Amino acid sequence: MAKINVTIWNEFRHEKEHEGIRKIYPEGIHGAIAKGIAADDLNIRLASLDEPEHGLTDEVINSTDVMIWWGHCAHSEVRDDIVAKVHKRVLEGMGLIVLHSGHFSKIFRAVTGTSCSLKWREAGEKERLWNIAPFHPITQGIGEYFELEHEEMYGERFDIPQDGQLIFVSWFEGGNVFRSGVTFERGYGKVFYFQPGHESYPNFYNENVLKVIGNAVRWARPVFFREMSAPCYPALEEIRSVDPNAIKAGVMQNADGSNK
Amino acid sequence: MAKINVTIWNEFRHEKEHEGIRKIYPEGIHGAIAKGIAADDLNIRLASLDEPEHGLTDEVINSTDVMIWWGHCAHSEVRDDIVAKVHKRVLEGMGLIVLHSGHFSKIFRAVTGTSCSLKWREAGEKERLWNIAPFHPITQGIGEYFELEHEEMYGERFDIPQDGQLIFVSWFEGGNVFRSGVTFERGYGKVFYFQPGHESYPNFYNENVLKVIGNAVRWARPVFFREMSAPCYPALEEIRSVDPNAIKAGVMQNADGSNK
Amino acid sequence: MAKINVTIWNEFRHEKEHEGIRKIYPEGIHGAIAKGIAADDLNIRLASLDEPEHGLTDEVINSTDVMIWWGHCAHSEVRDDIVAKVHKRVLEGMGLIVLHSGHFSKIFRAVTGTSCSLKWREAGEKERLWNIAPFHPITQGIGEYFELEHEEMYGERFDIPQDGQLIFVSWFEGGNVFRSGVTFERGYGKVFYFQPGHESYPNFYNENVLKVIGNAVRWARPVFFREMSAPCYPALEEIRSVDPNAIKAGVMQNADGSNK
Amino acid sequence: MAKINVTIWNEFRHEKEHEGIRKIYPEGIHGAIAKGIAADDLNIRLASLDEPEHGLTDEVINSTDVMIWWGHCAHSEVRDDIVAKVHKRVLEGMGLIVLHSGHFSKIFRAVTGTSCSLKWREAGEKERLWNIAPFHPITQGIGEYFELEHEEMYGERFDIPQDGQLIFVSWFEGGNVFRSGVTFERGYGKVFYFQPGHESYPNFYNENVLKVIGNAVRWARPVFFREMSAPCYPALEEIRSVDPNAIKAGVMQNADGSNK
Repeated sequence: MAKINVTIWNEFRHEKEHEGIRKIYPEGIHGAIAKGIAADDLNIRLASLDEPEHGLTDEVINSTDVMIWWGHCAHSEVRDDIVAKVHKRVLEGMGLIVLHSGHFSKIFRAVTGTSCSLKWREAGEKERLWNIAPFHPITQGIGEYFELEHEEMYGERFDIPQDGQLIFVSWFEGGNVFRSGVTFERGYGKVFYFQPGHESYPNFYNENVLKVIGNAVRWARPVFFREMSAPCYPALEEIRSVDPNAIKAGVMQNADGSNK
Repeated sequence: MAKINVTIWNEFRHEKEHEGIRKIYPEGIHGAIAKGIAADDLNIRLASLDEPEHGLTDEVINSTDVMIWWGHCAHSEVRDDIVAKVHKRVLEGMGLIVLHSGHFSKIFRAVTGTSCSLKWREAGEKERLWNIAPFHPITQGIGEYFELEHEEMYGERFDIPQDGQLIFVSWFEGGNVFRSGVTFERGYGKVFYFQPGHESYPNFYNENVLKVIGNAVRWARPVFFREMSAPCYPALEEIRSVDPNAIKAGVMQNADGSNK
Repeated sequence: MAKINVTIWNEFRHEKEHEGIRKIYPEGIHGAIAKGIAADDLNIRLASLDEPEHGLTDEVINSTDVMIWWGHCAHSEVRDDIVAKVHKRVLEGMGLIVLHSGHFSKIFRAVTGTSCSLKWREAGEKERLWNIAPFHPITQGIGEYFELEHEEMYGERFDIPQDGQLIFVSWFEGGNVFRSGVTFERGYGKVFYFQPGHESYPNFYNENVLKVIGNAVRWARPVFFREMSAPCYPALEEIRSVDPNAIKAGVMQNADGSNK
Repeated sequence: MAKINVTIWNEFRHEKEHEGIRKIYPEGIHGAIAKGIAADDLNIRLASLDEPEHGLTDEVINSTDVMIWWGHCAHSEVRDDIVAKVHKRVLEGMGLIVLHSGHFSKIFRAVTGTSCSLKWREAGEKERLWNIAPFHPITQGIGEYFELEHEEMYGERFDIPQDGQLIFVSWFEGGNVFRSGVTFERGYGKVFYFQPGHESYPNFYNENVLKVIGNAVRWARPVFFREMSAPCYPALEEIRSVDPNAIKAGVMQNADGSNK
């Protein structure tokens, strides 16, 4: 079986601008994830906001099987046209794994259709992630729960659609709960949101966090890539109800909503 | 109980540009729907593409409880900023009813997060809509099924998310099937997609179609309007895990993803 | 509008057998709930395990709109034939509200099809129920969360089906989380599971618990009662594919699976 | 990887009692399926109603990875205790594939919690199964749709829960539609309902039907088998809310609802 082409996208600003965070992630969050999930069946590339086209050229997008996305303070700087291309590629089959503060990224809002709002608190508290789906590919090798000594609190109500299948639900020391691992299907693509990963804690070195991300990459691998189309489709059965006075507006449409 | 403020938005081009269609809907599709669902508990307003701001000023959007949307050949002419406002209002509680070719509208794609692609055929064939949810408010007064003598075929695979709760599934004479009535929740708002209503057939005079739309308006009425927010939330329990060496990046975010 | 006929079923053993519990609920848990949700639009009846037919005669079942169920130590004593009648009535439209240890009742297992297993701990710890569905009829009048000073812990993984729509998710002081308010549709009936209500804490006097139960009763009110049937259905269209050599086994079935 | 142990259960009455049906399936429906899906990765066993314990001894159940179920006129003859064992094994991880008239089997009703009622017509009409989930493992190798020249009509409303994920939706020549391929998760097990397979048509020789069943077997393969338990769970955090006057009823329960 061919290797899975993984592109890890990182905003990559905190690490450059804040010395404390650079000490935690000297090669960037994307670099830490890449090292942490490295395996023979994965081809991993990195991309980040300040590269030309955010590192997401058509060539990169079109040769990516699964994209991992971390962003935080610069969501609004991500170009709409590039988000639209990534979204289109998800619908065509590409897997998408959105981490932590990526909940507010343009791409996650685009695939969910919701505000993705939530409560938050930067208090370095303990988080315990309960495994709700022990039979799911994403949780293999994970026990009933795992803990993170310090993590940013994200709390309900998390504004996501009802088709988010629960993988993890988190307990936070300060008294909140959160749907911290949730899957979606959009078009032909699979999407996984995973809550851990604030820039100021070293949780992308945690073996459970890395195992979950690695499992999610394999789970989100495309079955195929296929363009969405909205074909004018011939009748498969004889139609006898046709109105002889019928009008045809004659407007034909492309799959992107434009007219033919 | 206060009346429900309904805004019926129509692209309103076919009726102006094509004589045959004008004969069917001399006052526009929006006009026909408005007459057809008129009732004491509804305040109905009309809006259309070629009005200033498409008839969807802030004042109109913010005083609408339920918006009905019909569009077809000019989806791409609808301004993105206005779609964003309508979308935001849905998340805050406004009901949204999307009709027929509105499946490809920017607003429906935005709330679903999918391509909403489908098969289609303009052959004037018979459609039979099977009632899948007889206990649902939207289907009250509708029997096991109802028929439309002539309708444009829309066929599966319809690219929508899995949380679309089935209200109707259609049989088409030419051999296709379609999820022709589907509900979604997004934010605090309710969304209903309903398949009938091609511009070249008089189906917005059909009593079952009108009853479904009228029922859907009452169902989609907001329970409340509430802005989405992403508050920094105080701890409800004592946090004893705090790392004394913790870094705070200190980035605060607004609900729209911008930074404070 | 006619009043809603509510039947509150209680196992009613702890209160008779254990003095401490009798002190908390001198009129039984069912009695406390009945007082707590009493209102002009409700006709409330009580029923319990040790009455003839558990108080659930055909007459009672068939004149109940919404049934509330509390059981714990004697689930296995509930007669299968009576459970089957209650289940059938739910499918025909009756609302069902299952409380606390009722998660292991025969009726809740029957409607979910799962084991309904969970973790538990009787440590009198604090529970905080987060409101996940602020727009839902069941949560009206409830804020972002409410707390119970002492409650039995129920923890994930709760073995219920994926169509359980989340109303509440709970945080427990001892470190667990739980889907503590969940709705289901079964047949034409609505089902609500609500976690609070251990016999040794006075939580059926808590105003939030009572408000939720009261709201749930109105929400679960049947739209109609209708028997499930599996009719041999005439063709609505001409069938031209008939095989002249076709065999008819000629076995007709009733809706209960028996043969005609 | 170890082989998948498949047990194909067939009522096996029509084939013995009706000459015409025996001609179609001389080795029984189970025999035809076994031949049709035979492959190196499958260990296939057969079982039927009139064998001792319906061929479903504890040894057979406990060594089965995926069970296929066909029944029709004798659902009521299947022993409740054996159904309970099969149900328990599904919750522990065993896959279950229910075919055609098995919709009314005790086991399918038990896992869904609904009546599974539907409309039906034995008119030998054409069925076209539309592929709603082209990326799903069950539909690999299947195109946009496939047809069966003659099949019994099953029509909506099909009384199943809302978590039935759509794999196929069928068009019937006589004017009906049906959710003809639907998946569920129950406990740790996966369930697939598939509509084709009336005893009087040779559709278990159809290559598409066989491919779907074969795919479903691989999809439903257990990730693991694990007994459901309801453990008393120790606190993971210090509990400071304990009421010194608290009562403990002291009732301990087993996972099957009986008392310890």
